[in-house]
This record gives sequence, C-alpha cells and structure tokens, in this order.
Amino acid sequence: MSKLPVHLEVTHRSGRARAGILRTPHAEVLTPVFMPVGTQATVKAMAPDQVEATGSRLILANAFHLYLRPGHDVVARAGGLHEFERWPHAMLTDSGGFQAFSLAALRSIKEDGVRFQSPHDGSRHLIRPETSMEIQNALGADIIMAFDECVPGMSSHEAALAAVDRTTRWAIRCLEAHARPADQALFGIIQGNVYPDLRRRSAEALVPLDFPGYAVGGLSVGEPKDKMIPALSATTPWMPEDKPRYLMGVGTPEDLVVGVALGIDMFDCVLPTRLARHGTVWVGDGQKLNLRNARFREDPEVLDPGCDCQTCQGGFSRRYLHHLVRVEEFLAPTLLSIHNVRYLVRLMEDVRRAIAAGTFPGSHRHVVPPDMWALLERELEARTGA
Amino acid sequence: MSKLPVHLEVTHRSGRARAGILRTPHAEVLTPVFMPVGTQATVKAMAPDQVEATGSRLILANAFHLYLRPGHDVVARAGGLHEFERWPHAMLTDSGGFQAFSLAALRSIKEDGVRFQSPHDGSRHLIRPETSMEIQNALGADIIMAFDECVPGMSSHEAALAAVDRTTRWAIRCLEAHARPADQALFGIIQGNVYPDLRRRSAEALVPLDFPGYAVGGLSVGEPKDKMIPALSATTPWMPEDKPRYLMGVGTPEDLVVGVALGIDMFDCVLPTRLARHGTVWVGDGQKLNLRNARFREDPEVLDPGCDCQTCQGGFSRRYLHHLVRVEEFLAPTLLSIHNVRYLVRLMEDVRRAIAAGTFPGSHRHVVPPDMWALLERELEARTGA
Repeated sequence: MSKLPVHLEVTHRSGRARAGILRTPHAEVLTPVFMPVGTQATVKAMAPDQVEATGSRLILANAFHLYLRPGHDVVARAGGLHEFERWPHAMLTDSGGFQAFSLAALRSIKEDGVRFQSPHDGSRHLIRPETSMEIQNALGADIIMAFDECVPGMSSHEAALAAVDRTTRWAIRCLEAHARPADQALFGIIQGNVYPDLRRRSAEALVPLDFPGYAVGGLSVGEPKDKMIPALSATTPWMPEDKPRYLMGVGTPEDLVVGVALGIDMFDCVLPTRLARHGTVWVGDGQKLNLRNARFREDPEVLDPGCDCQTCQGGFSRRYLHHLVRVEEFLAPTLLSIHNVRYLVRLMEDVRRAIAAGTFPGSHRHVVPPDMWALLERELEARTGA
Repeated sequence: MSKLPVHLEVTHRSGRARAGILRTPHAEVLTPVFMPVGTQATVKAMAPDQVEATGSRLILANAFHLYLRPGHDVVARAGGLHEFERWPHAMLTDSGGFQAFSLAALRSIKEDGVRFQSPHDGSRHLIRPETSMEIQNALGADIIMAFDECVPGMSSHEAALAAVDRTTRWAIRCLEAHARPADQALFGIIQGNVYPDLRRRSAEALVPLDFPGYAVGGLSVGEPKDKMIPALSATTPWMPEDKPRYLMGVGTPEDLVVGVALGIDMFDCVLPTRLARHGTVWVGDGQKLNLRNARFREDPEVLDPGCDCQTCQGGFSRRYLHHLVRVEEFLAPTLLSIHNVRYLVRLMEDVRRAIAAGTFPGSHRHVVPPDMWALLERELEARTGA
C-alpha cells in the first residue's frame, strides 16, 4: 500500500463520514477536502499565492482544455503542470471525457473513444481512453482520472447501463495505458446515474481492478436532490473503505455536507469562482449575497464579519465590492473568489473537526435545507438499520 | 512651509534633474516617482498588496469616474478613498476636467464650467471648478488638482491662449473653493500647449498664487516629440524650485527619463496597466514584448531575468504567460501589470540613484531613442549656455 503515489489514512469516523490524511507526491491533504478548479492551468481570477492563502493544497486542471490550448506536449516540455502554473502543492486532472461530451461541437461517442471538433478552430479530434492517459501522464498531476462515459441526469436505465459497461471497458484500457503508476494515482469512476442497481454494478466491476482511489461520476448533472442523495447513498457502501472517495463536480455548501455524511472525502466544483464572477458570495450558513444589489451601496460591513479570508481580513467593505462589481473591475472576481474558495475550504475544516469530535453530521444541520436534511436522515437511518 | 500638507525636500541635483522626498499625510515618497493610475478606485487587475509590492506609495484616482460611480458622497461616507479602496499610502486625484472633455458625450465648455452627459445613463451634469473641489475634498486624496482647460495637442496659439487664461481664472476659483487646505495639497496646472510664450504666461500667472505644487498639463496629448520636449523644457524653468513638479499623463520609459532630465519630479500614466491588458510588457532598456506572439509559446524564461517584480521572482515563464494571454485568463493582466508597474517604479529608483551619483541623465541614455536623445541634449545645452 505504501508504494502507491496516493494513499488515504482514515483517522476519524462519525457515522458514515470519515476524516483523514490524503498523502500525495506534492502535499499531505487533510480530508474531507474541497478542491478549487483551475480549468486552464489557473484558478480563475486568483494568483497561486491567493489560492494557497485559502488553505487549499490540492487543485484541479482540465485535460480537455489543456490538450487543446496550449497542448499537453507544451506543458510536458515545461516540466509538467506544477512547474508550468507555479503550483507547488498537489494537483488532480480530470480525463477530458465530461468536457468533450458537454463543451465540444459535433461530438460522437463510439466504443473506441469520443470524436469532436475544437470549439476554438473547428479542428477534428479523437480522444480515446489511451489518449486521455497520454495527456494526463504528460500534464503530470498527482491524481489522474479514468476516461469514462457520463450520461445526462435523467437518462433511461438502458442508456445508463450501456454507459456503465463502457466505462468499465474504458477503465481497463486506462489502467493498461497508464504509463506513470508510480508517480500518478489513477482513480476509477463509478457511473450508474440515479439507479442503485447500476451503481452497484459499476462498483463491483471497478473495485476488483484495484484503483488507488474511486470517484462517483454522473451525479449533480441535472437530476433533482431526491434522486441524487439516494443514488449517492447507494454508491458509497460499495466503495473500498481504505481508499479515497471523490464526488465529482459538487458543489454547494449543502451538497458538501451531505456528501461527507454519506462517506465522501473529496469534492471539486467551479461554483465558488463562477459565483464570484457573477458578484455572488456565500456567507454564514450558506446564504448567498449578490453584491450587485443596490442594498449594498453603502453597506460598511465586510462580506462576513466571522470570515478569516484575505478579503474580509483585508477590510474590503461590501460597499467597495458593490462598486467594483458594478463598474466591472478585475479586482471584483479576485476578491470574491478568494472569499468563496476560503468559505468552502473552511467549511471542510469545520466538518473535519466535527467528525473528530463525533458530532457530525448533526453539527452541520444548519447548512442543509430542511428538505435535503430529511432526505439525508432517511438514508442514514436506512443504512444504520440495514 | 512646514504647515503645508505636502512638501518636497530636494536632496540631490544632477543638471536640471532633482531627487528628493515628497512628504504627504499618508506617505513619504521618494522622487522622482511614477504613480500608477487607479481610475475607478482600483489599479486595474491589481490588489492593493500587489500594488504595494511594486514599491508604489502614491497612486491616482479619477474624480470624474468616481463622481459618476459610485458618487463622491458615497466615498466620503465610507471615510474617503484611502479607507474605501484599502490603500493606506498616499493618493492623488485629478480634477475630472480632462476626462469630462475626452470621455463624456455632448460636452460643452463655458466660463462657468463643463456640461456633459454621463456615458453610463445619459444623465446631464455640470462640473464647475467649485464642483471639482467639492468632489476632490470628499474623496480626500493627499494631493488634489485644479480644474483646468486642456486643448488638443496641435491647437492654434489663439485657442491655447484662451485656455491658459481660463485655466488661471478657474485656478483662482479652485483656491477659493478648496475646503481642506490643511489636509489636501491643491496643485496648480500650467497649460500653454506647445507654445513657449504661453507656458511662461501660464506659469507667471499661477506661481504668484502660491500653490504647494505645480503640474504641467496639456503635453503628450497628440503632439510630436519635437514639439513636446521643447515645450516641457520651456516650462520647468518658470516653475518654483522648492515645490513638486508633476508631468501629467506621462508615460513611457523614455518620456520619464526625458521628463526627469528637464526637471520633473512626478509622473502618472495608465500605460503600464493598459499595455498589460493587451499582453505587452517592458523589459531591459524599454523594449516591448507582446506575449501573444507565437515565439513565446515554448519560451522558458521569465519576462526579464534581471527583474525583481513578483511575477518574475515568482518564476512565471513567458510560455505560461503566453498561454494565459491566449486563453484570456484574468491572471494574465494581473501578472503583466505587476511587472510593468514595477518596471517604471524601478526605473525611477535607478534614476534617483543616478541623480544622487551625479551621473544622470547620461546614465540613462540607453533608455531613450537617439532622435529623442538629440532633442533632449539640444535643450540641456541651450539652457546651460543661457
């Protein structure tokens, strides 16, 4: 086990939730962890030292985007992503599959891989599982992801089943093509949409392949919460206890709390930086403030008096941020992104402490809306009684 | 003299150039000094700590922009500009005159003031010299500027003469309307376009009014260098020796060197941050690099190996900056602005040392193109021989 480049040591449990230490080549990361997204080799509107100051030690980049611009070969010749973007801590790249499906033009999915046209210049590309490994090996992140097929949120059982089985076949091809297993941990991705039998089928196919970590893919892709929460709850029990569990593309403060409560260790989402670019921040127990609103025009408070981020500690007032948002200055997304990323990082730090104290998830009920809390409680009780 | 809020102590001279210490309520500023421009209460794409790290201790803001958004009354209720934008060091505001002439729609200039329509909502406004003082008193900068009339670069002698005399009448109204002379130093602005007799006329009218500092306005507004340099050379001899001299809206590395050589202490310009937003930086002796150029696609160097800015010291390579510029990420203007502002701040630090050593301006001949250097030498020789 110690020969793996990435290893999770679970140190505390509270119900189905776990806290631990994720050891990677570039950082020891305390879990549960929220990972900011740096799609194009930069967390949007933040300098690396500002990302570091949020407490983040593990960030994402997107293989799809970097394959197209500047090219994974360029990044490889620059010494890999860490050196290229001057981020000395841990990194994760996704496989490019999700972006090829969702962002590219004229895409078609065949058994061999995904064909698409570049949204930039119309050039034609084929990404196969082997291509994804080649790209991610070149980028050099600590954690890389299997090339999977993700169906939309409300797909049929038939379509979801086909995607599960293709994802398994592609996972095997990824394992075989992965050229740097001593440096980079390749995570498998469990699909199955909202269907518990398919989630189990996917996990039972992938767990024997002994990936060093597993992700839950295909959730938070358009399905309602009363489908998403039971589906997640039906997935984590089939995932290995001693390996990291990563819920992809999630999310909101309440989604993070529910995810941890159901056994997830890692999350990523563009939401904190995207909301910031639209002038919106989280405060308190997950309330949103849109700084564009005229009620902040003369508000002397910082975003959140209890917040320890650089923006709040720097004394930037809501009235100043309102002005920056209104006049569309660059500093607005920077200061609001710093706040939002720190908000989610700190939430995970708080959750971690509550897990160690054995008070989680009750400790964080205030972050979760009542209807979601009821869905979570139902799952936790069902599993306890099982 | 010591009762003035702003006072220049000249400590060294080299030819017509001076080095000194500009004492202001919020900072002691070493001169000659380049002042970054924070038009809308933020230096574009830079956080205050990033501006501070360039060595800047005196920055600008624009009365015209802040009058329109968020309103000078809002800034005043926020405790003034320093508190509003979290800049603890010195600040200067311009009067709004130049922007009202150049940016606003349907402007008309009468003896009473300037009428214009807001470019944002079409609302109608009148800024009088008294209004400009009211706005700048509310904003609370250490140095404020008289409301002047600036004619275009190649205006007739007749038009320039009329603007000189109106500028004098408005300067008297500004002095009378200035409500905070103990806190804020009001600088007069010498006009006269490229006409030496008008420059002298303007100076001889304004110097007896005993402003605590004087600016040279109306240069670098479209006239060629062979008009600009003689006009500046014909202006500074009429300005008080013991008061700060500020050349407005300048500029480039070579313009700064020439300006100092002709006796200027202070400069401001949007150029370093504007060039940065277009992907361009200064390196070496003032050469420009456009990072968008394909030749930087795999260039492993930092922008300038000899540079001590946060961007170069942070190890961000030209290939990474090329990528950020190409994919239009927020971090590009930030990292390039940090470099360009530091470039001009460091140039002024170098010039200051050369003045102290008595080697200026010959020490900085390499920064000035030969044709400009010849124009400068002609002025320096004429003055020495006079």
